[in-house]
Amino acid sequence: MNPDIVRERQNATFDVEKLTNILDGGPEKTKRRREIETLVLHDPDFKEEDPNFLSRSERYDQAVRKSAQMILKLREYGIADPDEIYCYKSMVSCNQHEAMGLHFAMFRPTLYSQCDNQQAKIWLPLADSTQVIGTYAQTELGHGTHLRGLETTATYDPATQEFVLNSPTVSSIKWWPGGLGKTSNHAIVLAQLHTLGNCHGLHAFIVPIRDMSTHEPLPGIVVGDIGPKFGFSEVDNGFLKLENVRLPRENMLMKYAKVEPDGTYVKPPSEKLTYGTMVFIRSMIVGQSAQALSKSCTIAIRYSAVRHQSELRPGEPEPQILDYQTQQYKLFPLLATAYAFIFVGQYMRKTYHRITGDINQGDFSELPELHALSAGLKAFTTWAANSGIEVCRMSCGGHGYSRSSALPDIYVNFTPACTYEGENTVMMLQTARYLVKSYQRAKNGQQLSGSVSYLNEAEHQRLQPQPVAARPTVVDINDLASLVEGYKLRAATLVQIAAKSIQQELQHRKNQEDAWNNSAIDLVRASDAHCHYVVVKLFTDKLGEIGDTAIHSVLSTLALLYALHGITQNSGDFLQAGLLSVPQMMLISARIKELLSQLRPNAVALVDAFDIRDKKLNSVLGRYDGNVYEHLFEWARRSPLNSTEVHESFHKYLKPLRAKL
Amino acid sequence: MNPDIVRERQNATFDVEKLTNILDGGPEKTKRRREIETLVLHDPDFKEEDPNFLSRSERYDQAVRKSAQMILKLREYGIADPDEIYCYKSMVSCNQHEAMGLHFAMFRPTLYSQCDNQQAKIWLPLADSTQVIGTYAQTELGHGTHLRGLETTATYDPATQEFVLNSPTVSSIKWWPGGLGKTSNHAIVLAQLHTLGNCHGLHAFIVPIRDMSTHEPLPGIVVGDIGPKFGFSEVDNGFLKLENVRLPRENMLMKYAKVEPDGTYVKPPSEKLTYGTMVFIRSMIVGQSAQALSKSCTIAIRYSAVRHQSELRPGEPEPQILDYQTQQYKLFPLLATAYAFIFVGQYMRKTYHRITGDINQGDFSELPELHALSAGLKAFTTWAANSGIEVCRMSCGGHGYSRSSALPDIYVNFTPACTYEGENTVMMLQTARYLVKSYQRAKNGQQLSGSVSYLNEAEHQRLQPQPVAARPTVVDINDLASLVEGYKLRAATLVQIAAKSIQQELQHRKNQEDAWNNSAIDLVRASDAHCHYVVVKLFTDKLGEIGDTAIHSVLSTLALLYALHGITQNSGDFLQAGLLSVPQMMLISARIKELLSQLRPNAVALVDAFDIRDKKLNSVLGRYDGNVYEHLFEWARRSPLNSTEVHESFHKYLKPLRAKL
Repeated sequence: MNPDIVRERQNATFDVEKLTNILDGGPEKTKRRREIETLVLHDPDFKEEDPNFLSRSERYDQAVRKSAQMILKLREYGIADPDEIYCYKSMVSCNQHEAMGLHFAMFRPTLYSQCDNQQAKIWLPLADSTQVIGTYAQTELGHGTHLRGLETTATYDPATQEFVLNSPTVSSIKWWPGGLGKTSNHAIVLAQLHTLGNCHGLHAFIVPIRDMSTHEPLPGIVVGDIGPKFGFSEVDNGFLKLENVRLPRENMLMKYAKVEPDGTYVKPPSEKLTYGTMVFIRSMIVGQSAQALSKSCTIAIRYSAVRHQSELRPGEPEPQILDYQTQQYKLFPLLATAYAFIFVGQYMRKTYHRITGDINQGDFSELPELHALSAGLKAFTTWAANSGIEVCRMSCGGHGYSRSSALPDIYVNFTPACTYEGENTVMMLQTARYLVKSYQRAKNGQQLSGSVSYLNEAEHQRLQPQPVAARPTVVDINDLASLVEGYKLRAATLVQIAAKSIQQELQHRKNQEDAWNNSAIDLVRASDAHCHYVVVKLFTDKLGEIGDTAIHSVLSTLALLYALHGITQNSGDFLQAGLLSVPQMMLISARIKELLSQLRPNAVALVDAFDIRDKKLNSVLGRYDGNVYEHLFEWARRSPLNSTEVHESFHKYLKPLRAKL
Repeated sequence: MNPDIVRERQNATFDVEKLTNILDGGPEKTKRRREIETLVLHDPDFKEEDPNFLSRSERYDQAVRKSAQMILKLREYGIADPDEIYCYKSMVSCNQHEAMGLHFAMFRPTLYSQCDNQQAKIWLPLADSTQVIGTYAQTELGHGTHLRGLETTATYDPATQEFVLNSPTVSSIKWWPGGLGKTSNHAIVLAQLHTLGNCHGLHAFIVPIRDMSTHEPLPGIVVGDIGPKFGFSEVDNGFLKLENVRLPRENMLMKYAKVEPDGTYVKPPSEKLTYGTMVFIRSMIVGQSAQALSKSCTIAIRYSAVRHQSELRPGEPEPQILDYQTQQYKLFPLLATAYAFIFVGQYMRKTYHRITGDINQGDFSELPELHALSAGLKAFTTWAANSGIEVCRMSCGGHGYSRSSALPDIYVNFTPACTYEGENTVMMLQTARYLVKSYQRAKNGQQLSGSVSYLNEAEHQRLQPQPVAARPTVVDINDLASLVEGYKLRAATLVQIAAKSIQQELQHRKNQEDAWNNSAIDLVRASDAHCHYVVVKLFTDKLGEIGDTAIHSVLSTLALLYALHGITQNSGDFLQAGLLSVPQMMLISARIKELLSQLRPNAVALVDAFDIRDKKLNSVLGRYDGNVYEHLFEWARRSPLNSTEVHESFHKYLKPLRAKL
């Protein structure tokens, strides 16, 4: 064990294990998590070479092997709870993705939720036994977010009782679905349904794409891998071109909408039913943001504790990097953010399950709120984690660029979350639509509930942008409750500014759509402020649940840092809204420096509490024992370019070159 | 040609060719650049497969081949001017790096500048004929920025007149030098020189590391590649462990410092001589920031012109992404930044050459200013370009994640510039040291010159942070000269705040070093504001040189956008310093929206003016003809995972799995 990191752990003021329990949701959960992780840790089947040493094809091969093994092992161990499966898979996949992820995350759930009884009898056993391996093919080469823009067609032919599927243009080729390129033999294809001369919009079809025995593509199917990407090297995201592919009528998923044998279209009873999955996945992504940032902070903070560099005082030995104020200023606000996002993730999961219960009893009243919140928070947390990972990486000096640090892998495998499951700017605008609607309702005297209820107060207080000095400042910078209030009023102000911008645009122009587009900058800003408020509030709320004094104290420091740092990053908003004064801004800067010093002795303990095992972290810089340099050297020597002392290029190019000069 | 992009070009209000000439520095330069680029374009030796389809070893192999070919071809064509060589090599390397880059960028220049006459006669011909291929080995596994911390030793043995070189610890292993792992047979090694019992600090030694005929590592040398990285896949960054390696005395570079045969150490005449190279390289990096951002904007803006998505008005066809305000808000400020950085890069090169002339005549007076400016601007521009590339990438939706977009390659190959040649935070603090010193001098009544002369004015005006409303606002938001003034006063305020923080710390604590460290956040902020001021000023100055009315108009719009956008991103600073009022901030937001609309018709023409050829851009999304989707499909089909229809993993894992379930 590196002596620096031992000393760090001795200096901690709180019990790390107790904090880990809080993060897991109780000591029993910690115990069970560790049991599951240990299963992977001691399993020789999951000992493997660093994927960074392998070619793309070898990485894919290894990932398919692991996917297949996981299916068998999960059955063998009887692990069936979704959270436990997630925990097991995360430990196996480390910083990479699962090759067969979409089969489990999208293909099977869609079959379960959208097959009618007869279809379920046929397809579920096939999917469960992996006779059928599937994916979910929605996006197309030229179409993503906007579902009505999708071009793939499914035209019903009553004569043969078949659908004819086509990709009529290059831009309509299905593109991006995970597992589509090489792994799947079936895909659920979303296509515009045409029957009896009418188009009824997008519907889902089960399309066989490869022969179940030979795995060769079927006639009319052009399928393959979309090529190397930034991350997701283990996954064969694929393309699919459909050329007059004929499907029996029974291959349309018919639990809700139907096409009768004669071609008559039967509408689904409700449109809201597909809403839930999106909300669930976006809520999950909030947790993944927290996870990616926790890993990155663990690596950067542990390495900053053992890395010595430059000098603070002449003649003295090089200090730990973590003693530099600039390093603390880079990392501790991110550490605070990681904690904040963990608590937000817990809240989102809990809320999702509560509201799902309501929905199952026919109560849809909270769904719009949850939908808006999950969209905005998905964008807010992924953007913050995305840039935070890179700050962590760059805080590690040169070695942050080495694949051995794991930070490049964490980044490239996380960053797509900013785009998939709802592009972030689009997500922010969806939340903004809800906020502006709520603002209008409040203005019309309606009483709002949930996270937007502050818009009622704002209306009462008639917030107006006006010269700063003319308004009393309202925030006590040392009081979290008061800071939450400040964030709330900032959000209210920005929602109001956005709503007014739309109004002004309407006065100058003709239509609603242009007014919306010409206010989009303000709308995104309002959503961002709303989400920021929610995060500060949920972090503060969480403190109320913490009984242990020492942990309460350190988490309060983190929460205060999170809130004050957020203010300095957006100081113009708070000054403009008259929520804080210029002298208060100066005090906040000074207070942040104090908080950094206060957190310094607990920094390593705070990342230890995330309890991310070395195997899962897979980072030479983030090792629990702090023995970084020996292992970096050892890792480099294993690198494939070192398998021979002399690379063939010497004989091919360098030696001949001399003769020519 | 895609009709959307044709229409964009028809709508431009200025002559693209004329703007290209301005960026190149004149029509003759444009012509010559294109001649050189065309040499590469039509050279069948440089037709190659996308490196993203190759393994690491194949990529390295291909890069060595190209390096060797370039040496021959540059001789054949008689291209010897450094700028022209740079242009040729950029075209060959596209978004990747040159395998033998360090031989030309560091090894040979160091030999040229630090060999004494006798050494020059031996080593220069060997290096020029590539008998000797070398690199520059400074950083160590545990040591980067702080040169005094380097541990490698060179101990002189008068008995044999040899130096004995050692890596005494794991952390002292040389680490990171490009070309060290596999390519080089020599390295210039920086080591602590010990002779006659005294240590004289770092000196440079020519160390043979591989046999010149067999290329096998020599005795006592442990050398290899440091393993895969985030980018730089073509480069064999290496490690070097020295185990009692004996070198003849003549292998120490002796132009300045010397060791006599009896071990007597002779000091170099001046320390300042090595200063210049750093300044030069950092100035070059400013230009590279501009280049990376220009490429990224070219890709993102062209693709946004041909990509259609979602709907603005119900029932109408999907609009070009570039018509969304949020997309304009992401991309146009970056486009403005790219232009700003090009002009800053031109200024830095010019200033470097001017001051180098002065230095050669013994006048060192401007060197500290240039040193401080190049350090800060290196950090300021690389950070901005670094995050800007990612904004461009994420503005391309899913396809920005495809390696075919080139954006991942541009990012991973550019981001190390934030760390190498001076870690950015360290750079900002170096500039801050100069600013604080200058501030003290101004306070003591000294008249300052150069970019910091405003600190004199600031002292006259006795700037004080005080309630915003109590001070008159000074900035006219539509006047660039006035905005430059605003940025200047912001910088002055922040320098003052940082200086005062140090003073306050000194009053509370004992030593200068802690006071400095406890003010580091303020110091970085002050440097950042200083650099921001310089960039706004240089962009504005450049406009004065532009005669063409149409180009002057569009560049003025860009400059105004750059300045106003910077204010909104740092609005707290301007409000706190009382430079702008709250109502002005609202006006700025509105003005920015107008500027975005104004730039919209010229966006494609403005990136066309960068004149980056398709071959060099190597991006499916950024193609000049806008025919994106056909080529994306074609690229994907060539991907190695598609070389067989059925991947072997099906037979190895998936088929057997079924039998077990």
